[in-house]
Amino acid sequence: MKEYFPSIPKIKYEGAASDNPLAYKFYNPEEVIAGKKMKDQLRFSAAYWHTICAAGSDMFGAATADKTFGNTDPMDLAKAKAYAFFEIIDKLGIEFFAFHDRDIAPEGTTLSESNKNLDVMVDLFESLMKEYDKKLLWGTANMFNNPRYMHGAGTSCNADVFAYAAAQAKKAIEVSVRLNASGYTFWGGREGYDTLLNTNMGLEVDNMARFLKLTTEYGRSIGFKGAYYIEPKPKEPTKHQYDFDAATVIGFLRKYGLDMKLNLEANHGTLATHTFQHELRVARTEGFFGSVDANTGDLLLGWDTDQFPNDVYDTTLALYEIIKAGGFTTGGLNFDSKARRASFKPEDVFISHIMGMDSMALGLRFADKLIKDGRIDKFVEERYASYSSGIGKKIVNGTVTIQELEKYALEQGDVKTNQSGRQEYLEGVINQVLFG
Amino acid sequence: MKEYFPSIPKIKYEGAASDNPLAYKFYNPEEVIAGKKMKDQLRFSAAYWHTICAAGSDMFGAATADKTFGNTDPMDLAKAKAYAFFEIIDKLGIEFFAFHDRDIAPEGTTLSESNKNLDVMVDLFESLMKEYDKKLLWGTANMFNNPRYMHGAGTSCNADVFAYAAAQAKKAIEVSVRLNASGYTFWGGREGYDTLLNTNMGLEVDNMARFLKLTTEYGRSIGFKGAYYIEPKPKEPTKHQYDFDAATVIGFLRKYGLDMKLNLEANHGTLATHTFQHELRVARTEGFFGSVDANTGDLLLGWDTDQFPNDVYDTTLALYEIIKAGGFTTGGLNFDSKARRASFKPEDVFISHIMGMDSMALGLRFADKLIKDGRIDKFVEERYASYSSGIGKKIVNGTVTIQELEKYALEQGDVKTNQSGRQEYLEGVINQVLFG
Amino acid sequence: MKEYFPSIPKIKYEGAASDNPLAYKFYNPEEVIAGKKMKDQLRFSAAYWHTICAAGSDMFGAATADKTFGNTDPMDLAKAKAYAFFEIIDKLGIEFFAFHDRDIAPEGTTLSESNKNLDVMVDLFESLMKEYDKKLLWGTANMFNNPRYMHGAGTSCNADVFAYAAAQAKKAIEVSVRLNASGYTFWGGREGYDTLLNTNMGLEVDNMARFLKLTTEYGRSIGFKGAYYIEPKPKEPTKHQYDFDAATVIGFLRKYGLDMKLNLEANHGTLATHTFQHELRVARTEGFFGSVDANTGDLLLGWDTDQFPNDVYDTTLALYEIIKAGGFTTGGLNFDSKARRASFKPEDVFISHIMGMDSMALGLRFADKLIKDGRIDKFVEERYASYSSGIGKKIVNGTVTIQELEKYALEQGDVKTNQSGRQEYLEGVINQVLFG
Amino acid sequence: MKEYFPSIPKIKYEGAASDNPLAYKFYNPEEVIAGKKMKDQLRFSAAYWHTICAAGSDMFGAATADKTFGNTDPMDLAKAKAYAFFEIIDKLGIEFFAFHDRDIAPEGTTLSESNKNLDVMVDLFESLMKEYDKKLLWGTANMFNNPRYMHGAGTSCNADVFAYAAAQAKKAIEVSVRLNASGYTFWGGREGYDTLLNTNMGLEVDNMARFLKLTTEYGRSIGFKGAYYIEPKPKEPTKHQYDFDAATVIGFLRKYGLDMKLNLEANHGTLATHTFQHELRVARTEGFFGSVDANTGDLLLGWDTDQFPNDVYDTTLALYEIIKAGGFTTGGLNFDSKARRASFKPEDVFISHIMGMDSMALGLRFADKLIKDGRIDKFVEERYASYSSGIGKKIVNGTVTIQELEKYALEQGDVKTNQSGRQEYLEGVINQVLFG
Repeated sequence: MKEYFPSIPKIKYEGAASDNPLAYKFYNPEEVIAGKKMKDQLRFSAAYWHTICAAGSDMFGAATADKTFGNTDPMDLAKAKAYAFFEIIDKLGIEFFAFHDRDIAPEGTTLSESNKNLDVMVDLFESLMKEYDKKLLWGTANMFNNPRYMHGAGTSCNADVFAYAAAQAKKAIEVSVRLNASGYTFWGGREGYDTLLNTNMGLEVDNMARFLKLTTEYGRSIGFKGAYYIEPKPKEPTKHQYDFDAATVIGFLRKYGLDMKLNLEANHGTLATHTFQHELRVARTEGFFGSVDANTGDLLLGWDTDQFPNDVYDTTLALYEIIKAGGFTTGGLNFDSKARRASFKPEDVFISHIMGMDSMALGLRFADKLIKDGRIDKFVEERYASYSSGIGKKIVNGTVTIQELEKYALEQGDVKTNQSGRQEYLEGVINQVLFG
Repeated sequence: MKEYFPSIPKIKYEGAASDNPLAYKFYNPEEVIAGKKMKDQLRFSAAYWHTICAAGSDMFGAATADKTFGNTDPMDLAKAKAYAFFEIIDKLGIEFFAFHDRDIAPEGTTLSESNKNLDVMVDLFESLMKEYDKKLLWGTANMFNNPRYMHGAGTSCNADVFAYAAAQAKKAIEVSVRLNASGYTFWGGREGYDTLLNTNMGLEVDNMARFLKLTTEYGRSIGFKGAYYIEPKPKEPTKHQYDFDAATVIGFLRKYGLDMKLNLEANHGTLATHTFQHELRVARTEGFFGSVDANTGDLLLGWDTDQFPNDVYDTTLALYEIIKAGGFTTGGLNFDSKARRASFKPEDVFISHIMGMDSMALGLRFADKLIKDGRIDKFVEERYASYSSGIGKKIVNGTVTIQELEKYALEQGDVKTNQSGRQEYLEGVINQVLFG
Repeated sequence: MKEYFPSIPKIKYEGAASDNPLAYKFYNPEEVIAGKKMKDQLRFSAAYWHTICAAGSDMFGAATADKTFGNTDPMDLAKAKAYAFFEIIDKLGIEFFAFHDRDIAPEGTTLSESNKNLDVMVDLFESLMKEYDKKLLWGTANMFNNPRYMHGAGTSCNADVFAYAAAQAKKAIEVSVRLNASGYTFWGGREGYDTLLNTNMGLEVDNMARFLKLTTEYGRSIGFKGAYYIEPKPKEPTKHQYDFDAATVIGFLRKYGLDMKLNLEANHGTLATHTFQHELRVARTEGFFGSVDANTGDLLLGWDTDQFPNDVYDTTLALYEIIKAGGFTTGGLNFDSKARRASFKPEDVFISHIMGMDSMALGLRFADKLIKDGRIDKFVEERYASYSSGIGKKIVNGTVTIQELEKYALEQGDVKTNQSGRQEYLEGVINQVLFG
Repeated sequence: MKEYFPSIPKIKYEGAASDNPLAYKFYNPEEVIAGKKMKDQLRFSAAYWHTICAAGSDMFGAATADKTFGNTDPMDLAKAKAYAFFEIIDKLGIEFFAFHDRDIAPEGTTLSESNKNLDVMVDLFESLMKEYDKKLLWGTANMFNNPRYMHGAGTSCNADVFAYAAAQAKKAIEVSVRLNASGYTFWGGREGYDTLLNTNMGLEVDNMARFLKLTTEYGRSIGFKGAYYIEPKPKEPTKHQYDFDAATVIGFLRKYGLDMKLNLEANHGTLATHTFQHELRVARTEGFFGSVDANTGDLLLGWDTDQFPNDVYDTTLALYEIIKAGGFTTGGLNFDSKARRASFKPEDVFISHIMGMDSMALGLRFADKLIKDGRIDKFVEERYASYSSGIGKKIVNGTVTIQELEKYALEQGDVKTNQSGRQEYLEGVINQVLFG
């Protein structure tokens, strides 16, 4: 088989002192952390769209990287990308991947032609997955790029678009089932509005629920056992997206009784003015934790930069939440991340994944260390101790009356029992865990 | 009775050409707009805390305005403020007002002393309300200023604080009932966290629901017939507040089955990166529209500026949503607004309310004109027409299957029926309505 | 000559009551406002790149509008666009236009080929400008789209790129001179950095100055009499752009003694967290006011939306500053604005310009009315009156000593002469001017 | 002498494994890093206003910490604070401090009374500084808190305020000279505007320069040999502050020829949408680096949080810039930082400084390691190598003509020499330095 990146070796763990750019310094796949091998804790996944499709264009600039491998025919190109992609994840030792239907096969002039192209490529994927022993973390349908989706997909003002989107999602779910995906994700890229002046919000949100109900139930009917994910994002490309953040989406899922969990993306959380840890905490507290789109944004920029995660504070606190949520079951860490436009060499694809994986590996190591250190968990436990006995316990148990609370407060006169929140102490503990 | 602002006359409507700073140019209370008198559509309310308490301090500066009227004794001062306040709203012709318990009476060294002070002042309020024919739009308890609430009230890590807050809210509800309030508002000023490192989010959110259940049910038990409001705010003073925005709060209310509507503040919406119209639209679409804290923020500043509303685009679109929601029933436009720190003269209190009321009056006039113009409503109706017949109707009725949608889409081949969203045209219509 | 938009008539002024989407409601070109015809005050310019090139793509979606007019050959397409563009501005009655070199002619495989293509198109432009009696507001070179500029142009880390950019700008200036441009603009789309980790900021900023010196002096040497503009933008596509905002750029121009004025874009100002009025005020106060890229951003979104200006508060205050700066000489109002992606019909190109021009026309009418009203100017004059006599005059004249100031202050004891800033009163005056 | 914090011992270095909250884990004052003792590299300074004055109030809450030590008389309280403060910095081993005039002595009813109070306290400071061997990093005048400064100080619309401010600054400079300060800082807390509607920006900016000229020249005339600093901040409390950021201020200083350097605060930089490293880089590149206000903001909040620095990425990159700038001469790391409102115990004052100092110490260790590692510096050097010879060298030397550049570019045809920016690789190097 043709090698697409002959100068790139299999990426190995060489430890923290290595100055080899093509080696892991912190990610040691077989090492056991928190009771499992690192690779099983982290369940890394590469995003087909960034890793092998995205070529560095931005709103003000054309592509900088050549990912055509000399092809011009769309189907030849699609196949070459598939071969190259599996070589990449094989060399990186990444077990999972994720894709949109239109990433892997060219769109035809009709839906049936698109489906046909997709089927051809799914055959190839099936054989490559077997050959390389790789797994599909989740599939999804791209329902935002094509002009037909200019007003949304499930929330389009045009019923023809709703129908088309349902048909496209149906096929994408079928494909995902065929490839034995652990999950299926809905990112509502244009499920929102550009201006309220032309928008019937009530109908659109109801339709979004109708769309998800139809498609998720269909998947179950054909034997899909994995998790459905919905992926919050507050805005971009639209002015407002209905699945704004974790809390909003959970309210929506509860209202309509939908069978879905959350796929949380770090950069989407920060665009909604939340930390990534916050989004994960909401999901685990509410019981909707599913999977993660691993990346980072730039908090001083106002758009989705999809940078590879590099901040180990963020990865540590994310992994802390993930471990506390019980770890991944169907989900994983999917790198919805792209090398910067100026990192345009083939080597940069590998180096950027290495950096992201090492950052996550450090996060895992430190999250485990933090839990073992115990100071923070213990502090939190003691901080809320007043709810474990006396009046506090009755509050939690729901056995207190407001009259009883009033009597208690009047007797106390004022509160004399507040303790320091000790934020700076706890921040110091984090630094000790990371740098001690 | 002593007149506190002898140089200020009763504020009258003089029309758009008046150059009298102490006259309404656009607010004509008795004029009928959209089927009701302006005063009944707008139901203006003055905020006791800003109008008579706030004296211009900010994080970097001491008070600039003197609102002591020569008093030093706390109870004397409280009474003087009450007299002065009723003179202000009487001269402005504002029918409603709102207050926190601690705005109107000084906090004592114990809860019972605070309650006693409050009772004295409530007696005075009762008589002043009668004398001036003024109504209480809503009452509330200040559960964020006192150090005891440093970790929150209903969400405090300290059960003693929960108890104290419940007792305080109980009293504030009793007072509101006694003063025949149309509503009672909960703004969870510190119901959130400063750092996740010390926070049990699950317990805190559950406790917030327990707190609201206890207090709202108590109110009903003593005969409160008005509306309970919860007021979203995403942050400030805390890092994160659980009642982030309209969508988040609605999800929370549904989860816990709470008997509450929303009190939406413009500046809180924009801090959550939403337009005010968006927040109102969410509330009306979901059936939770209640009342409004009328102000504006500065979108280029990152804190709650509580400026008097001056942008007539904003007030027009807000009133448009309010009219579409059926108009105010228990709620109103409460000016949670303060004159700028440098507008420190007594006259500025009047002028800033006049400006805010005129801005809202313009908004009402234009919202009515916009609806009568009809172009926007008609455009929206036609834009979604595909859901009124054929496949679209079946989607909405829930009678379509995914197989049927697929068949339809395959037959179409691709979508050929998208129409322009015409945002710029609609923006031009708005300008014609405002300036034509 | 072939008509590209046969269904679109010449756009006429029909007045505020017209419901014809293809008519001006507020822009009456021959009407005299503030001593000049509206068209001469506003000097509207269409942006070639948006009006005839941009087709609605965004970071998550492909083009929605077809602007190929059936062409596939690059030079045929370029010519068709030129014909269509001049038809558009002729029908809109827009006198000026602006373009990048690469907008009007396809890039060749070498610089000389690109230059040759450009020459062909410039011949055509020359004849079309004559035929339609249109003028070039300014020319510019696109030095950000091509991958060669991935690290910047004048600030590239690669001297070959500096050389190429200089050659490209040289040609673009020659072309601008040939087409008798009133100005020439530098927008440093990638003159900044993506990460400080790989950046020599000192060298880059010096090189930017060297680049501007070489190119602007060359223009003078071949007889360019117009204005050079530099266009501030804080970020996007880069993490940081050296020409961050008006104040930063003015400091840079003074440091290096460059012969340039500012071309200020509304949306760039707001990305730098300034109001557009602020940027204009800085430029006029410092004597660097030049030209304007007319558009608006969405203050709740963090990227450059380039929307057509629709907020008449903004356009009024912008025109107020422009009139106070003496009005346009070489500059004008260039619509660096694009119809929204979902406004994809040919008609939307016209309607969006109409809306933008009407918004600017309203701004001009109100700015003139505001100045004639006089209340705001008079208030400001009186507010600073203390600097016109006594100690204040000596401060301004530079004849006071610090000892004298201290003596004065000690004698006063404290300041007793502060007056209210009256912000709310002034905001009310603005609303009277707009809606009275 | 009375001990104010008897339960707090002298804070010692105990190393990274210590779980003693009252010990340094990373700051080892006598250890030599990068050629100097840590204490001499870092030159820590405590901010009098936060450390001993600020008591936890915020815009929605009263003070939580009691820093009165039982005093009610203003002068007694001032003295107690001074004793307590010197005990704090002595126990922490902090060598420097900074204060505003009004922090250390109560404001009188007249300027002369204020001066008298100040003189009394300066006597005490002089003796305490001698006794504890402590030094004044810089002095400053608080010209923003008192209502008289509501419209600014040097930029006030009221000449009486300019005079008063000049007199106050004169006195503060005298006091600083007497206490042998290494510097004197101007933070223009209200040197900006709240609304352009009432503002003469040109006069205000000129007056700001006049004010700085008068005061800085006066200092030199009485023998001040230290550095004058101006401290940028973009906004808050004002809508806009003229000393927006480093670049803006440098342009201002150059225009008016002022003898000042920059005192850069991390949180002010991020409010201006810059990283702290960016602000430091601008200052060192332009030759204006002076001193640092060490803290951190929360990038997801829009106000000045003044948190103790805890992010070691930030401190590493800051120290990297400081070392590259030649290290501190007159300046130092002044903790313009406050414990969170809920960290209200006396112990928290110590713990928060410890955490901040340890974070800075880690930053110093890693900055040194990064420079010794050399990979990043070498990468940058090689990245710009094309400017060291050939056409690049001529560009830098200013010996190239535009015709020569064009000839070169035409011969090349296109640029073939771009290299990857390698951002992800460099981010991985940073993680190796921090965690390897």
